[in-house]
Amino acid sequence: MIMSPFRQHPVPAVYDVCAVGNAIVDIIAECDEAFLVSYEITKGAMNLVDETRADFLYKNLGPSIETSGGSAANTVAGVAALGGMPTYIGKVKSDEFGKIFRHDMRASGVHFPTQAATEGPSTARSLIVVTPDAQRSMNTYLGACADLCADDVDPQLVANAQVTFLEGYLFDKPKAQEAFYVAAKIAHEAGRHLALTPSDTFCVDRHRDGFMDLVKNQVDYLVANEFELMSLFQVSSFEEAMAQARTHCQIVVGTRSEKGAVIASADQTYVIEADPVAQAVDSTGAGDMFAAGFLFGLTHGYDLPTSGRIGAVVASEVIGHYGPRAQGDLKDLVRAKGINL
Amino acid sequence: MIMSPFRQHPVPAVYDVCAVGNAIVDIIAECDEAFLVSYEITKGAMNLVDETRADFLYKNLGPSIETSGGSAANTVAGVAALGGMPTYIGKVKSDEFGKIFRHDMRASGVHFPTQAATEGPSTARSLIVVTPDAQRSMNTYLGACADLCADDVDPQLVANAQVTFLEGYLFDKPKAQEAFYVAAKIAHEAGRHLALTPSDTFCVDRHRDGFMDLVKNQVDYLVANEFELMSLFQVSSFEEAMAQARTHCQIVVGTRSEKGAVIASADQTYVIEADPVAQAVDSTGAGDMFAAGFLFGLTHGYDLPTSGRIGAVVASEVIGHYGPRAQGDLKDLVRAKGINL
Repeated sequence: MIMSPFRQHPVPAVYDVCAVGNAIVDIIAECDEAFLVSYEITKGAMNLVDETRADFLYKNLGPSIETSGGSAANTVAGVAALGGMPTYIGKVKSDEFGKIFRHDMRASGVHFPTQAATEGPSTARSLIVVTPDAQRSMNTYLGACADLCADDVDPQLVANAQVTFLEGYLFDKPKAQEAFYVAAKIAHEAGRHLALTPSDTFCVDRHRDGFMDLVKNQVDYLVANEFELMSLFQVSSFEEAMAQARTHCQIVVGTRSEKGAVIASADQTYVIEADPVAQAVDSTGAGDMFAAGFLFGLTHGYDLPTSGRIGAVVASEVIGHYGPRAQGDLKDLVRAKGINL
Repeated sequence: MIMSPFRQHPVPAVYDVCAVGNAIVDIIAECDEAFLVSYEITKGAMNLVDETRADFLYKNLGPSIETSGGSAANTVAGVAALGGMPTYIGKVKSDEFGKIFRHDMRASGVHFPTQAATEGPSTARSLIVVTPDAQRSMNTYLGACADLCADDVDPQLVANAQVTFLEGYLFDKPKAQEAFYVAAKIAHEAGRHLALTPSDTFCVDRHRDGFMDLVKNQVDYLVANEFELMSLFQVSSFEEAMAQARTHCQIVVGTRSEKGAVIASADQTYVIEADPVAQAVDSTGAGDMFAAGFLFGLTHGYDLPTSGRIGAVVASEVIGHYGPRAQGDLKDLVRAKGINL
């Protein structure tokens, strides 16, 4: 579906971005390469684990810090930190970690009204081990967040957001897939836009057909890294993947770590350079924050290259410290890079 | 009580340091100066709060990260990170935060066998707000940790540790005071040493007489910052405070933030320069880590100035990031400063 992001909408949006994603608390610890080998953790990936394995890994994990995470949740926290008005749909349980997650969303300036589950599995947690090369390998117990269903998709949030941003990770359960289509329908009927991140290559492998159906028929903005794009279209070059993606989606954002990003509309292509990082500590959240900067720019009237540049600046910030969310004043940071925010 | 730290003990110690302290999970958030004023938080201090105020402040606090803290607990985690063999006595409840605290202690390499409370108040938490000048102001709900009593002081731990390190913060309740004297008695009867940190000036104000009794009759090593020392001896100069302290204790360590530290034995005085910090982010744990480096050095046969230098190096590391405990390899860091660890 191709719609112009620049046409006037009859009703001003209440929210810039409504994200739908896995509500997860991150447990972050340093480890060496040998730890990944011993515990058979796929490096750089999001490994899904059950509660028993999560407990087992935690027992063997080094000292950790806990902080709210979740890919699309990080993105909307970033949008808020830039001065935007985001909202979030995601499922926690009414336990300690659920309270922490809700606190952090609200304290970040994200409207987050989804009701907590009072029974069933506990709030999701992701044991994130960070190797000395700043790569993060995640071990995620989905718990409560995988129970998100169509009923949780509040039409008032989606219809009143300029963009609804779907997190591919959520696509694992049929009920969540249904929630995606419900959100897409509400967004488009309200004349709004739909964005998708496929989340990671393993997630693309699990759901290639489902994602392709979304991309072909629902997604206006596709935000993905180069490997996800190549895997999605089953091609061996980034350029070929971008070429295919732009025939389906109005805007395609292809991120490439230290090589920056490429943004393509139907007839324009912009190459965005990565922002230099003084010392890479933990890459957790870099892609989420690129999406935050980009979506903030897009929903605030910036052109595509400037939106991409905002994405690059905020992505580099989060790589410089542990944890997936911004520290310090993101607006000042973006302004310091010469962008008139 | 003056004992030589260098005389041979008939029984080799199992542990280098046994710390007795408040077992606390830290909730760390950034704030501006106005936040401190609005919520009447004394800057730089440890403010004791009840559970209602802790909940109220948390509600109004920005997004946070959670990590295990507690002053003396940070110290023994630092001793372990340097390659030492520490143990810890402190009280948590068997709740989520209690599990996190225990995990982090064990994962840090600290032997921590104190039984968790199964009823009563929840695990202690400290809401730590960090202003842009890297100063931290703490709001601590003591919960379970204040219930530590003499029965929790396992004689096997204290008698088998070269040094037992008491955290002044714990001194607020009569039962904990009793625990201090029990620990002192066990340590000295086993021919070991006793160290004390008065924790902060407000704590000194609350317990000057109690601390003075300990310093005069029990403490071999006094580890304090300049303001605590001046408050304790009620004198207006650091030099005068050091002069008085060294008449009571075998070794006095007086830390002075960016001015470094002074270490005094009965007849020797060493001035230790502060280690340069690239960017001060959060001063939480700096004093605790100085104590860690110093006690590690002392219990591993290093001389006083080298022990102080190790303290300065590890204190500067923890100031460079959020959270009170070391990140990365402390041993490498100390070796990089030319100390043969």
